[in-house]
Amino acid sequence: MATLRDVAARAGVSIRTVSNVVNDFHYVSEATRARVQRAIEETGYQPNLAARSLRGGRSGLIGLIVPEIDVPYFGELTRAFIEQLAGKDYTLVVDHTDGQPDRERDIVLRRRPAPLFDGLIVNPLQLGADQLEVRSPPAPLVLIGEQVHSKQFDHVMIDNVRAARESVEHLISLGRRRIAVIGGPPDGWTKTTALRIEGYRAALRDAGRKPDPTLDVRTEALHRRDGAAAMEQLLALRRPPDAVFCLNDLVALGVLRTLSVHGVRVPDDIAVTGFDDVEDGRYSTPTLSTVAPDKTGIATLALERLMIRMAGDRSPGVTLFADHTFVARESTVGTGAG
Amino acid sequence: MATLRDVAARAGVSIRTVSNVVNDFHYVSEATRARVQRAIEETGYQPNLAARSLRGGRSGLIGLIVPEIDVPYFGELTRAFIEQLAGKDYTLVVDHTDGQPDRERDIVLRRRPAPLFDGLIVNPLQLGADQLEVRSPPAPLVLIGEQVHSKQFDHVMIDNVRAARESVEHLISLGRRRIAVIGGPPDGWTKTTALRIEGYRAALRDAGRKPDPTLDVRTEALHRRDGAAAMEQLLALRRPPDAVFCLNDLVALGVLRTLSVHGVRVPDDIAVTGFDDVEDGRYSTPTLSTVAPDKTGIATLALERLMIRMAGDRSPGVTLFADHTFVARESTVGTGAG
Repeated sequence: MATLRDVAARAGVSIRTVSNVVNDFHYVSEATRARVQRAIEETGYQPNLAARSLRGGRSGLIGLIVPEIDVPYFGELTRAFIEQLAGKDYTLVVDHTDGQPDRERDIVLRRRPAPLFDGLIVNPLQLGADQLEVRSPPAPLVLIGEQVHSKQFDHVMIDNVRAARESVEHLISLGRRRIAVIGGPPDGWTKTTALRIEGYRAALRDAGRKPDPTLDVRTEALHRRDGAAAMEQLLALRRPPDAVFCLNDLVALGVLRTLSVHGVRVPDDIAVTGFDDVEDGRYSTPTLSTVAPDKTGIATLALERLMIRMAGDRSPGVTLFADHTFVARESTVGTGAG
Repeated sequence: MATLRDVAARAGVSIRTVSNVVNDFHYVSEATRARVQRAIEETGYQPNLAARSLRGGRSGLIGLIVPEIDVPYFGELTRAFIEQLAGKDYTLVVDHTDGQPDRERDIVLRRRPAPLFDGLIVNPLQLGADQLEVRSPPAPLVLIGEQVHSKQFDHVMIDNVRAARESVEHLISLGRRRIAVIGGPPDGWTKTTALRIEGYRAALRDAGRKPDPTLDVRTEALHRRDGAAAMEQLLALRRPPDAVFCLNDLVALGVLRTLSVHGVRVPDDIAVTGFDDVEDGRYSTPTLSTVAPDKTGIATLALERLMIRMAGDRSPGVTLFADHTFVARESTVGTGAG
C-alpha cells in the first residue's frame, strides 16, 4: 500500500507538503497542489480516515492537553499553538488535567460519544508511554514536554540537560561558589526534574565541584509559593548559597519575593535563574535570567508532525528538539549601574 | 407547555435542583431526584434537545471562550471554571479569540459540522449583543465580562463601577492628591474601560476633585508593556502623579517595573493599584494592591445559569453580580516597616 513517503517521492516534494495538501492547508501553491494530487492518484495512496473525511465527519478540532492552564508557561505555549494554526482549517481547543492521572486518561483516551479531536497534542504528567501505546488514543497524537518517552509517538521537546547546564555554567562564570537548586517533587523525580538536575550536576562536575546536598531543595510543585518557601529554608542555613538555579520561572519569582522580604540583594548577594522565559520575569524587579525555550518552534514542530500523522503516516515515532537560548537579565548580571 | 419552573413548583424544589436532575449531576439526593422525576412526568415537561440527548448525541463539552488565554486573569478564571465542573459530567474546553471579531463569530456561532458544545460561556470583546441575539448561537450561552449587554442572555460580572470607586477612595484616604488612571484603548471606550473610569471619576467627584486630563493615559491594550510605556509618559510630566489607578494588574505590573527602573519609591512617592488579583501581584516587589473579583463566584454563577438554560429554561436573560473585594498590599500601604 502506498505511503505518504511514496507520494512525496513521486511528486518530488517533502512529506510535509503532501501532508499540507491532504490536510487542505491554504498555503500550498496551486501548481504544487496539482502535482501532489496527481501523485496521490498515481500511487493509489489512501489518506487515513481522519484525512479522508475532511469535508465530512471530522470535527475540525485539535486538542491541546496541558497539566495546568493557569501556569504562564502553558498559557504562552497555548498562544504559540493558536498562532501557528491561524489560517488553517482547524480550531485549537485546550483542556487541562491538573496532573490527575484519571483526568489525563479520560481526556486523552476518550472515545465516546465520538472521537472528539482530529488530532491531539499532549503534555502528560502522569500518563506513561506504556498506557498510551497499549490503549492507543482515538486520534493521531504528538507528545510535548519531558515526561514520557515513547517509540510509537512523535515527541517534541527542548534539550533540558543542555539548557540547565548552560544556566549553571553562566552562574559559575560569574564566580558563584555555592549554587543551590530549587524545584521538583521530594518523593521521586519527575522526568523534567531529572533532566534539569542532570544538567546542573554536569555543570558542577565539569567545574570540578561536588554538589552540596544542603543546597538541593525539593518542592511539591513548581509554583511561586514553592520557590518562596524553599528560599526561606536556604536562607536559614549556616552557609546560604550565593546563587540559585530554579527549575522554572514561577519558582524563581517566588525566590525573588523571599529575597526582597529579607532585604537580600539580587544579584549582589545571591544570583537567581529561572527556566521558561514567561513574561512575568521580563517585568519583575530584578528582571529574571532564564532559559527561553523556542515556544513557536515547539508549536511548529509539533503541529507539523501531527499533520503528517493525520495524513496517515504510521512510521515509528521520532523525537525532535526545538531550540532554546539562555537569556541573561538583572537577576544574574545586575543593571550594569553598579 | 410545562416549563422548568412548573416542575420546580410541583416538586417543591428550586429551579437549580431541577436543572441538576435534568443534567444528571451526581450531588442530588436520591429522594429529591425521584421527586423531581415524578414532577417531570406529571407536568409533561420536555427538556430541550441538549438535555434530552443526554446519553446520546450530546458532546459532553462546555466551551469557555475568552479573548486571551495567556493573560493570567483568564488563566485563573479558566481554572475556576474547571474546578467548578469537577465531578460533573462535562468537560470544559477553552478557546481564545485574540479579540478578533471574525474569530469570535466563527467560534461562538459555528454550527457545522455539528453543534460542538452543549453549552457556551463567552467573554466577548467584539461581538455585540445584536449579533448574538439575531444570529442565535447553536447552544445555550451565558455571557461573562463587561462588554455586552443583552436582554436575551444571562450575564455574570462584578460591579466594576463600585470596585473602581473603592480603589480610588482607598488612594484618596491615603492622602493622595494627584491620582492618575492608566488603561483602555485611545480610540473609543470598551465597556470595561468605561465602567472602571466611571468609578474613578465618581470617587474623585465625591471627594470634591476634578479629573486632570493630563493624568488620564489611554493604552492600546492592557498588557505589561502598555503600563510600562504609560508610566514613562506620566513621569515626564512637569507634575507627575502621586498615585496610579491601573485598569488591570498587568498594566500595574508594567507600571511597577518602570517606577523601579527610575528609582521611584512605591508607595512613598507613587502608590499603585491594579484590578484582577492575579497571582503575579501577590509575589511582585512591592506586592500589588488590587480589586479581587470572586473568580470562583463568577464560575459558579455562570455554570448554574448555563445548566438551567441547558435544561430548557427560556425566560429572559438575567444579570448576576459576583462579589469582589479590595485587597490593600504594599504598593499602597507599604510594608508597615516604614
